[in-house]
Amino acid sequence: MTLAPFLAACRRQPADHVPVWFMRQAGRALPEYRAARHQGSILDSIRDPELAAEITLQPVRRYGVDAAVLFSDIVVPVEAIGFGVDIKPGVGPVVEQPFAGAADLARLRPLEPEADIPYVIETIRLLSRELTVPLIGFAGAPFTLASYLVEGGPSRDHVRTKALMWQQPDLWAALLDRLADLAIATLRAQVGAGAQAVQLFDSWVGTLSPEDYARQAMPASKKVLDGVADLGVPRIHFGVGTGELLGLMAQAGADVVGVDWRVPLDQARARLGPDFAVQGNLDPVSVLAGWDVARQRADRIVAQGGGRGHIFNLGHGVLPDTDPGVLTALVDHLHAAGKVE
Amino acid sequence: MTLAPFLAACRRQPADHVPVWFMRQAGRALPEYRAARHQGSILDSIRDPELAAEITLQPVRRYGVDAAVLFSDIVVPVEAIGFGVDIKPGVGPVVEQPFAGAADLARLRPLEPEADIPYVIETIRLLSRELTVPLIGFAGAPFTLASYLVEGGPSRDHVRTKALMWQQPDLWAALLDRLADLAIATLRAQVGAGAQAVQLFDSWVGTLSPEDYARQAMPASKKVLDGVADLGVPRIHFGVGTGELLGLMAQAGADVVGVDWRVPLDQARARLGPDFAVQGNLDPVSVLAGWDVARQRADRIVAQGGGRGHIFNLGHGVLPDTDPGVLTALVDHLHAAGKVE
Repeated sequence: MTLAPFLAACRRQPADHVPVWFMRQAGRALPEYRAARHQGSILDSIRDPELAAEITLQPVRRYGVDAAVLFSDIVVPVEAIGFGVDIKPGVGPVVEQPFAGAADLARLRPLEPEADIPYVIETIRLLSRELTVPLIGFAGAPFTLASYLVEGGPSRDHVRTKALMWQQPDLWAALLDRLADLAIATLRAQVGAGAQAVQLFDSWVGTLSPEDYARQAMPASKKVLDGVADLGVPRIHFGVGTGELLGLMAQAGADVVGVDWRVPLDQARARLGPDFAVQGNLDPVSVLAGWDVARQRADRIVAQGGGRGHIFNLGHGVLPDTDPGVLTALVDHLHAAGKVE
Repeated sequence: MTLAPFLAACRRQPADHVPVWFMRQAGRALPEYRAARHQGSILDSIRDPELAAEITLQPVRRYGVDAAVLFSDIVVPVEAIGFGVDIKPGVGPVVEQPFAGAADLARLRPLEPEADIPYVIETIRLLSRELTVPLIGFAGAPFTLASYLVEGGPSRDHVRTKALMWQQPDLWAALLDRLADLAIATLRAQVGAGAQAVQLFDSWVGTLSPEDYARQAMPASKKVLDGVADLGVPRIHFGVGTGELLGLMAQAGADVVGVDWRVPLDQARARLGPDFAVQGNLDPVSVLAGWDVARQRADRIVAQGGGRGHIFNLGHGVLPDTDPGVLTALVDHLHAAGKVE
């Protein structure tokens, strides 16, 4: 039996075709998602295994992508242990009482997956019966999750987060360590239930200098990636604006490094060396600019940095106004190019 | 007569001390600014030469910085020719009728500085009599200004901007060409009135890949920088998240390249080579994290990338909640280190 193209690319092996999936493929842009999901919080839909499985499957059916990504959110584990987080439409995660001091560490107890996130495990079990492509599980990296907990929501400048990090390095380390443990427990539960790869989302870590990253964010991410190494599934490590951090993100324990559109894929590969696969890196806006723009840019990416060990993806999530037809056309077009030798 | 430290550093010559100034030093964080400025739009304060000169002088008095930066805004020229822009507190520039097609080009007529922005010229004339340090004039780079005009305001993803750029490259080029002409006229008027250096702000260009930058943003920025080369004043070229673009931004015609905190200054210098000075690159958040954090990080920057041809600055503008006392202490501390040989 040959390996699925997605898993083959993760392992830098030849593949039947360029594997493609899209971050945030489940949700947002799909009319069938908007029709299916609960009217309340996204978290309500995530807590409903039948629905979450259906939403996870929708883009696989619609686009013919080479991997499914669990319909969930990086705040699910902290919400599940009672930290008080919701996801507001058009805003993102919002925290009722942000993390402000040592006393708040007690609010971050260990995750007991069977008791705290049974719906995630059940969703994956349902999916395992249905899916014809590998399922990617995921967790938020400690830095990015900490930034939501400390800021209380999305932030441009990450002022409070960095202030805590620099002014109270021990408390910061303790916070990230707890978040690392949550991520490990989450990913282990997902893989235990059937996920065949994991992605660690450190979406906002590009705001850090390499020195700060190496000293105050990477150790906790490394703990997470090391903490799932024995499971034998590919580990994808992703961030945005991380051109200066790619080498460190690889060293943290990744098998695949996510690259955004700011770094040409051949340069990313040169920075990483031959031991890592890469994932990316189409600017999500180019999909909104129509098929001609998207196709030309996709072809350019494959020409520049394709080949073995390349998983085609966007450089960040699917944008809300994306035309699903362009994503379908993109998958068909990339698949039509044939084998990756 | 020895050259002022700021101008000496721009020319990569020895200086009496490390020159320091702060982007957005005029305004925001200063109580004397909040006391002095008009209650209406910031544009009203900019249009009042006595007041704009006073606000420009405030940080020179308060902090003892080595350069003054004109109290103005990058949207001033487009507003002055009637494009319909205001600056909303807590939001930024907001455009009544965004640029949407070829017909809007006619709304971008050439700038006649004496008629359109007499208040800017008058402000600089007033400042020339008072200032003991060089005055930096500035303009918005065509890409960043275009992004405000096309999006209608600040944007995270620059969806409309990139779509226009990729879908209608001729119209995009025509738009950027008009904005380049506006920037040239603005900067020439500022220097004619007494500005001793200019900075081209391309704050949001870090959202582009190097290929897109080289093809669809750099030519217009190069036109601006070339268009003021004969004036003989140092040209600073600044952007955020531009690690992948630094070499191109230098080639565009800069004497000094602005570097944000994501790229260590020694690496920035290595990428640029010996023919360019650098400006930066303290994370503005570190100033909010208190004196100890700010001092340690400033020392690290000087140790890593200081010396001839370094102008100390933040990596982006002063943040609103900054304690002015920390900025003063920073200037004193950096000056106390003595000569740059």
